[in-house]
Amino acid sequence: MIKVSIVGGSGYAGGELLRILLQHPKVHINQVTSRQFAGQPVSLVHPNLRKSTDICFISLDQLRKCDVLIIALPNGVSMGLMNRFKNLAGKIIDLGADFRLHNQVNFTRWYHTVHAYPELLSDFVYGISEVHREEIRKAKYVSCAGCEATVSILSLYPLVKNELIENEVIIDAKMSSSQAGMRASLSSHHPERSGVVRSYMPTGHRHTAEIEQELSGLKVGISATAIDMVRGLLVTIHAKPKKNVSEKDIWNAYRYVYGNEPFIRIVKEKSGLYRYPEPKILQGTNYCDIGFELDQHTNRLVIIGAIDNLVKGTAGQAVQAMNIMFGIPEALGLTFTGLHPI
Amino acid sequence: MIKVSIVGGSGYAGGELLRILLQHPKVHINQVTSRQFAGQPVSLVHPNLRKSTDICFISLDQLRKCDVLIIALPNGVSMGLMNRFKNLAGKIIDLGADFRLHNQVNFTRWYHTVHAYPELLSDFVYGISEVHREEIRKAKYVSCAGCEATVSILSLYPLVKNELIENEVIIDAKMSSSQAGMRASLSSHHPERSGVVRSYMPTGHRHTAEIEQELSGLKVGISATAIDMVRGLLVTIHAKPKKNVSEKDIWNAYRYVYGNEPFIRIVKEKSGLYRYPEPKILQGTNYCDIGFELDQHTNRLVIIGAIDNLVKGTAGQAVQAMNIMFGIPEALGLTFTGLHPI
Amino acid sequence: MIKVSIVGGSGYAGGELLRILLQHPKVHINQVTSRQFAGQPVSLVHPNLRKSTDICFISLDQLRKCDVLIIALPNGVSMGLMNRFKNLAGKIIDLGADFRLHNQVNFTRWYHTVHAYPELLSDFVYGISEVHREEIRKAKYVSCAGCEATVSILSLYPLVKNELIENEVIIDAKMSSSQAGMRASLSSHHPERSGVVRSYMPTGHRHTAEIEQELSGLKVGISATAIDMVRGLLVTIHAKPKKNVSEKDIWNAYRYVYGNEPFIRIVKEKSGLYRYPEPKILQGTNYCDIGFELDQHTNRLVIIGAIDNLVKGTAGQAVQAMNIMFGIPEALGLTFTGLHPI
Amino acid sequence: MIKVSIVGGSGYAGGELLRILLQHPKVHINQVTSRQFAGQPVSLVHPNLRKSTDICFISLDQLRKCDVLIIALPNGVSMGLMNRFKNLAGKIIDLGADFRLHNQVNFTRWYHTVHAYPELLSDFVYGISEVHREEIRKAKYVSCAGCEATVSILSLYPLVKNELIENEVIIDAKMSSSQAGMRASLSSHHPERSGVVRSYMPTGHRHTAEIEQELSGLKVGISATAIDMVRGLLVTIHAKPKKNVSEKDIWNAYRYVYGNEPFIRIVKEKSGLYRYPEPKILQGTNYCDIGFELDQHTNRLVIIGAIDNLVKGTAGQAVQAMNIMFGIPEALGLTFTGLHPI
Repeated sequence: MIKVSIVGGSGYAGGELLRILLQHPKVHINQVTSRQFAGQPVSLVHPNLRKSTDICFISLDQLRKCDVLIIALPNGVSMGLMNRFKNLAGKIIDLGADFRLHNQVNFTRWYHTVHAYPELLSDFVYGISEVHREEIRKAKYVSCAGCEATVSILSLYPLVKNELIENEVIIDAKMSSSQAGMRASLSSHHPERSGVVRSYMPTGHRHTAEIEQELSGLKVGISATAIDMVRGLLVTIHAKPKKNVSEKDIWNAYRYVYGNEPFIRIVKEKSGLYRYPEPKILQGTNYCDIGFELDQHTNRLVIIGAIDNLVKGTAGQAVQAMNIMFGIPEALGLTFTGLHPI
Repeated sequence: MIKVSIVGGSGYAGGELLRILLQHPKVHINQVTSRQFAGQPVSLVHPNLRKSTDICFISLDQLRKCDVLIIALPNGVSMGLMNRFKNLAGKIIDLGADFRLHNQVNFTRWYHTVHAYPELLSDFVYGISEVHREEIRKAKYVSCAGCEATVSILSLYPLVKNELIENEVIIDAKMSSSQAGMRASLSSHHPERSGVVRSYMPTGHRHTAEIEQELSGLKVGISATAIDMVRGLLVTIHAKPKKNVSEKDIWNAYRYVYGNEPFIRIVKEKSGLYRYPEPKILQGTNYCDIGFELDQHTNRLVIIGAIDNLVKGTAGQAVQAMNIMFGIPEALGLTFTGLHPI
Repeated sequence: MIKVSIVGGSGYAGGELLRILLQHPKVHINQVTSRQFAGQPVSLVHPNLRKSTDICFISLDQLRKCDVLIIALPNGVSMGLMNRFKNLAGKIIDLGADFRLHNQVNFTRWYHTVHAYPELLSDFVYGISEVHREEIRKAKYVSCAGCEATVSILSLYPLVKNELIENEVIIDAKMSSSQAGMRASLSSHHPERSGVVRSYMPTGHRHTAEIEQELSGLKVGISATAIDMVRGLLVTIHAKPKKNVSEKDIWNAYRYVYGNEPFIRIVKEKSGLYRYPEPKILQGTNYCDIGFELDQHTNRLVIIGAIDNLVKGTAGQAVQAMNIMFGIPEALGLTFTGLHPI
Repeated sequence: MIKVSIVGGSGYAGGELLRILLQHPKVHINQVTSRQFAGQPVSLVHPNLRKSTDICFISLDQLRKCDVLIIALPNGVSMGLMNRFKNLAGKIIDLGADFRLHNQVNFTRWYHTVHAYPELLSDFVYGISEVHREEIRKAKYVSCAGCEATVSILSLYPLVKNELIENEVIIDAKMSSSQAGMRASLSSHHPERSGVVRSYMPTGHRHTAEIEQELSGLKVGISATAIDMVRGLLVTIHAKPKKNVSEKDIWNAYRYVYGNEPFIRIVKEKSGLYRYPEPKILQGTNYCDIGFELDQHTNRLVIIGAIDNLVKGTAGQAVQAMNIMFGIPEALGLTFTGLHPI
């Protein structure tokens, strides 16, 4: 059994890690930290886990050695503690943004702060398994992608790799409230947040940096709109196909690159209600669903990608990477199919 | 492996049966019927099952012998076919209402129709495992309870059994849209159904009959209000405690009767956000959460029960009964813990 | 023109007062206070009022004399300031809970605090126009009812007045998030509050005191469940009809008492989707819709009442009382019919 | 008083016309037709109008002469009846799509049908008052714009007029369920429609034709995503600013063109929760809110527009045009400010 400890287990990402790992056949959850809730049962903040576990949160000081540390701390916190974490575990998976960018100048530009340990940036492999599987297999340290970056990169990767699109894309992202984390504020206050179609970030989204890093050469403009959804993320990507690119070329690119991927589904149906990707049926699953449509009128390629931001976009991505790092079957613990209707 | 066939697999109950049974370690899904979708893949109507299965629907005529038939037909349809089904499988689990009531007079009163084969009514065991486990173990034919009846009976059973409440209760039920099934109508049209707090059945709910049958001696008044929820069911039950009944007596009754039940959780917390049962964190799970509060001001006992109407209220209840009927561990296939946040 | 000033104008009740009074043909809004937003335009917190007004919030110190003060402060704040307010206006309408109860012992029991000026309690008329119209007409000081009390009292008043029901009722209330006001907390955090069916107060609701005061002799048990709704309130009231009370008797009571009321509608239809009261089509309106059904099975009378908690339950109720106090047509400013679909 | 009759009054547009016109100080509603509901009160299908009116639907045959006919029939129906309508009223306002396009070839291309009376196409003025006010003032026949076209045209018009953007734009539209009208189907069935982020029309939206007609020279690519919203519409428009266009140029264009418009608000705030346009606070109002942001990173101009699809996008637009046609104040009957919170 792999001994896993979770650092920062009281947030939504931490809760999903617990949910997944409690049913993972090859994992023993060693410890789970929470500054605020140390000493209390994890089910106090994750009520879905009642009767599934009696684990209580510990404080960071009580953290002992383990096989792998999975870190779900707020952005900016893990970088200062990383050297300490390295003494506790041979393998580390970080869910925060601190180690996603390889370039410290880039980091400063998008996060408006100086990185505490820029020399560590190059130690981390970017955690999307479909793109970096072989590196992850050998990695000691993995930094998982942001949720919005995950679905965008997965949607675009085969097209960029096969040079099917021009080098500028617009990503129109529809976002859920769990992406903002567990901290309450007026902007998340139910009467204000319910029913919104809120252009909370029409320009300047920080995940731009990750996407441009991973899809080298691409220029990315993100506009993010928050809608009335707790969990889930959909991107509508507007791209220009290169000259003479056909629908078949696009199909082929996706099939060739993703044909054997356990967690990618190409969704482009002629009938039924769910003809393109939809986040609602992905809740709790590790799938990334991808669809597309060519627009002759404007010579535009519309790509649609959907994930559960807390699973494929966060905790599930981490467990998938962990499975690869430990050489066990990649889908272990991640087989939940999702619910319908929901 | 148990060979299971599903009759009526294109509805919401059928979809949940498929979802659960596809991951059940001791089940092989033999066949799945649908009049409307015969020949088409089940994932056309159950898009969450894409990549999980290639099964296609068959017509009823193509149904072959199997170990157990699970029937998810509209109310009134299975009774006419039951003798035919008996030739196909030694064990049958019916999810509809046709065989829930033992008494044909009662059936006619609440369903406003004459039963086609009243002589078969006594062949069926009522399918709530927590109440009829030993009978189910020996049963050939099980009729699962209605979702609203399930949560009401489970919430009240220990209190009635231990004679802690007076013999009249009011059940104020908050209902979701999936309970009405898959047939579209103006009442389920999104602009009309969204945001409702609709008293669609203030009196006269048919599940009254089941509850009164199972909790003998109790008089039940149900008022059902549809709210903006796809999946889930909460009942607020207003009862009168018998003289001198204390909170401790109630705790003891629940603990004594449900102490070892895998799918019952008593939820009555002093802190946290989820202090009482809530259906939203039960989506996809087989749990029935039960809580209560004594009101000194009116000498009232308020009991709160929550389930996922499609799992513990339908498909999960059936699989739990099936596990018991076949002598395999009762929780097999039913271990999903639910999501938070959602 | 009536010169109105609003004390505490940045909350949801204050916003609704502004919305209604800005279009009231006989009102001039004099001043609007807010401790937190003094100096800023009211449209900063009430974005629906953009382009309708340029009024800015002032601090309490800047408040000048006016014809009527409408007070929308948090519970417990207005009582300490009431003597000061009396020097500023000859008429006062208080939306908070401080002056609703006539009896200070009762106040202490339900609000767990001692009233600062109990001698003022008898100065206030309880503000439901349908019950206290003549007193309001002569009143200097009016204290508006709590939203949950408003709909419950209006639903029960003709039945109690005509002695049609036994003296104990159960009120099962379905509540919206705006009732908890504008302060953000984890319990109102969108991922936690969205989709709930939360038994946040199964017993012990403070509005019990008001209802029992106004419907003398009645014993009231409230169970309040928060659902995923921003605005609106529905009560399902379970009562026992007295012996030989018929449906016609109940119709007659409602017609006799409410026949000429501009804001009461009896809703009990045989066809259509909206056969009973529903809060969603009342958003923004001053209506209280009331319906009922007799249950022969349990000898129970189910009464259903719905309002917009922020209008008939708060700001609209205040404006209706103000219109009466100033001898102008009672419906002025309150004629919005509500939206469908919504 | 202007005598108005409504043809096709039982749909959502018809209901909004009734709601607005019942409170319009210069309008008398003459007759309202409905094939399905002839003889029944309008409040049967528009329950918000209970107590506001006793009008009953009539059949089309019973339609008499009036001052203006407002037609809210399904697309494709009004063209065949138009000559008949012309005999009944000197002025006609059509809410459907039949007379929006001036060019019959264009009509056939986008509506896949031949126009029954192409010679009538040139009789109609396109009904967006902000763009065609002077023509509408003199018009006998007005064809109101599609809701998605309305908000897109209004958002782009000052930019195109002032030549501030390049001639290709992408419109990413977030749509509500009321846009699909009152006919129930599986795609509008609550369990399927609730919670969706459904790419129901990633390419090929028919409103493209209107937008390109009105904003001559522009090439438009629409991707429409249905979200869980009953009423409201938001477009995120991605455009390329021409060289050296500054934020100030854009501000100036909007201010110059829309400075005196009663129903346009430029929303671009530095603080508050509602910094950009949001449909939820526009429910029931005739506003079109417009905001924008320049993206230096991709040299992109993001324009955000929001309306209530049933008001500014349909019924309110018609009443605004009617007011202009009859030389009465343009905002009569359209002053509802919208609700917050909602």
